[in-house]
Amino acid sequence: MNFEFHNPTRIIFGAGNLARLGGVAREYGAKALIVTGGGSVKKSGAFDRAVQSLTAAGVAYAECDGVEPNPRITSVIRGAQTARSQGCDVIIAIGGGSVMDAAKVIAAATFYDGNPWDMIHHGQADVHVPDKALPIITVPTLAATGSETNCGAVITNEETKVKSFIQNPLLSPKAAIMDPELTVSVPRNQTAYGVCDLITHVTEAYFNGIDSTPLQDRFAEGVILTAMQWGPKAIADGADIEARTHIQWAAAVALNGWVQVGTNGAYPVHMLEHTLSGHHDVTHAAGLSVINPAWMRFAAKTNTPKFVQFAQRIFGLTATSENDVSCALEGIDRFEAFLRSIDCPTRLSELGIDDALLETYARDTLQIIHDEDGNLPGRPPMSVADIVSIFRSAL
Amino acid sequence: MNFEFHNPTRIIFGAGNLARLGGVAREYGAKALIVTGGGSVKKSGAFDRAVQSLTAAGVAYAECDGVEPNPRITSVIRGAQTARSQGCDVIIAIGGGSVMDAAKVIAAATFYDGNPWDMIHHGQADVHVPDKALPIITVPTLAATGSETNCGAVITNEETKVKSFIQNPLLSPKAAIMDPELTVSVPRNQTAYGVCDLITHVTEAYFNGIDSTPLQDRFAEGVILTAMQWGPKAIADGADIEARTHIQWAAAVALNGWVQVGTNGAYPVHMLEHTLSGHHDVTHAAGLSVINPAWMRFAAKTNTPKFVQFAQRIFGLTATSENDVSCALEGIDRFEAFLRSIDCPTRLSELGIDDALLETYARDTLQIIHDEDGNLPGRPPMSVADIVSIFRSAL
Repeated sequence: MNFEFHNPTRIIFGAGNLARLGGVAREYGAKALIVTGGGSVKKSGAFDRAVQSLTAAGVAYAECDGVEPNPRITSVIRGAQTARSQGCDVIIAIGGGSVMDAAKVIAAATFYDGNPWDMIHHGQADVHVPDKALPIITVPTLAATGSETNCGAVITNEETKVKSFIQNPLLSPKAAIMDPELTVSVPRNQTAYGVCDLITHVTEAYFNGIDSTPLQDRFAEGVILTAMQWGPKAIADGADIEARTHIQWAAAVALNGWVQVGTNGAYPVHMLEHTLSGHHDVTHAAGLSVINPAWMRFAAKTNTPKFVQFAQRIFGLTATSENDVSCALEGIDRFEAFLRSIDCPTRLSELGIDDALLETYARDTLQIIHDEDGNLPGRPPMSVADIVSIFRSAL
Repeated sequence: MNFEFHNPTRIIFGAGNLARLGGVAREYGAKALIVTGGGSVKKSGAFDRAVQSLTAAGVAYAECDGVEPNPRITSVIRGAQTARSQGCDVIIAIGGGSVMDAAKVIAAATFYDGNPWDMIHHGQADVHVPDKALPIITVPTLAATGSETNCGAVITNEETKVKSFIQNPLLSPKAAIMDPELTVSVPRNQTAYGVCDLITHVTEAYFNGIDSTPLQDRFAEGVILTAMQWGPKAIADGADIEARTHIQWAAAVALNGWVQVGTNGAYPVHMLEHTLSGHHDVTHAAGLSVINPAWMRFAAKTNTPKFVQFAQRIFGLTATSENDVSCALEGIDRFEAFLRSIDCPTRLSELGIDDALLETYARDTLQIIHDEDGNLPGRPPMSVADIVSIFRSAL
């Protein structure tokens, strides 16, 4: 293990902490751009409580609402224009991953005269690396993405159908205010998607990382076990604040770097899902739920011991050896069964996707990222044929 | 769970990273005060390599060497005087926990004209809270304390025999350079003490924290399982860089706040050990190794379910119910057996301590910290009689 890790985001966690937003925002600015999504935070009253807190602290605000579930670069452009024209000096994201991701890129785009799409990795010759960004405060209303405490963002270009990412330390939120009460109104299906999303965030590095990362393995397994124990409770009773608390914390931890650090893990399932939801407007986690088990069965053939460990430690299965493929596959079946038990889709047909564009998805994904051999980074690296076979197995 | 967490320390981890010290130090200052201990870093060559790196980066340095295993306030005073007289603008600690702890307090004492002992909690009416400190860089040469990435320090007053602590965000290291190669020369017994130390750091919050912290429980168990798996390898073969790597990372994670966050855990075993090693110059971890199992048997009577969970998840034992006291005690026996298997002491007599001062240790500890009922904070809170009974059970 050889790595550098720095997560400077200040975490303010616990029921009732939305009331602290104003005081925290005042530390970073005098006028906030509040970024929101489709309006659920206004229906729930969270927006009004946030504004009350800001006003009480003497923080003015402007708005960028209507950010899409798969946030579009046009929303980023719109938000940056508002931030500039309104003289905002701090960005506050109140919403789910899409809102937080858009807000992060808006924070950097405010200081960039070109098209912010230049900052998103999409196979272009030279990516524009931002050198300045407004301070960002995240207020997640959905336990899923982990975007609240990391420096990454995923943005979609609706014209080119490309969905891709940026990672830059400037996009690390200064503070994340995580108030589980805000997640109580999340509907059952979105709650389940969040559980699937957070689990997939840790399975990626767990299965695609280097060998011999024992502590990171335990951390990843801890996140998975916690999500599988408390996720169904939060899905069954949205008002269960204890379950909401544990799922929100697990979601944040799942992608703030602590679990993955040192593993050098790739994110092939995410890369494939980004292509899918770039072409079809499917929910990110629904796409992950379909692709992940299919990918696992492919990867288990080459990285069998890690899948055996997964089967043993997550599902308590017994293996005849560290290369017991049937034990590995049984663990994957159990995982897929868990996803189905929380009503997450596991077939492309459930997403309304057929086999018409399988090779296109593969080639589009490799357009965005590939290794020196032209394969999709991961364990194992995947060719177009490999990717198509995975999609085909999930039809 | 309701908490605030902020760990801004930049972690640079992996074999060979000592070479980066100069470049990193240059980001924070032009003249370093290098704080070291009894000379092992000079024998091992680590000090010379550090100086080479600093010199190559144009960073001058002064020295504060000879910091004791239980760092004394007089060493802090001496270091601060040197930092002031030599015009140092960055503090670099190269050594174990005692060296890093002394360096942290030196960083704050440099800006304080009074006696730095005023900053250490020792039951005084008003504790001096530092308002400024020099930037600190830690280079741990021992996997044990976790001090490299937290804002705490423990200092001993040799006159009053009081050993106590300070915690302040200003003492958070700017960067921690963790190079497992530096730990290869750590002798067998010190390596074992480090394993005991890091495990005790997580057992404290694990057993003394609030109920329902499932993810933190998994993290703590992950640290314990990793330490118990890789510790014996590092002890058996000090040159096993893989084992050294995993133990060093586990030691850092064990006390950087990430495992304990949200648990509101108390540290009764540490408080008791500090009193012991204040009176007798015993190695911190040797004291912990004796007190922890004895304390566990006391606490298991009231917090049985957590000790049953420990027995099940760490040692794979089977329980008849969550209140299966015999299962809980069997887990503690297994843990004590592990400590003995790595040649850590488990009786006070092995430390040359008899029953002459047991009540004094108890009263001295309560002098430093006690709840509104006059008991030592923990689960359960402990009276003088409780503490004496624990010490007596470990004679």
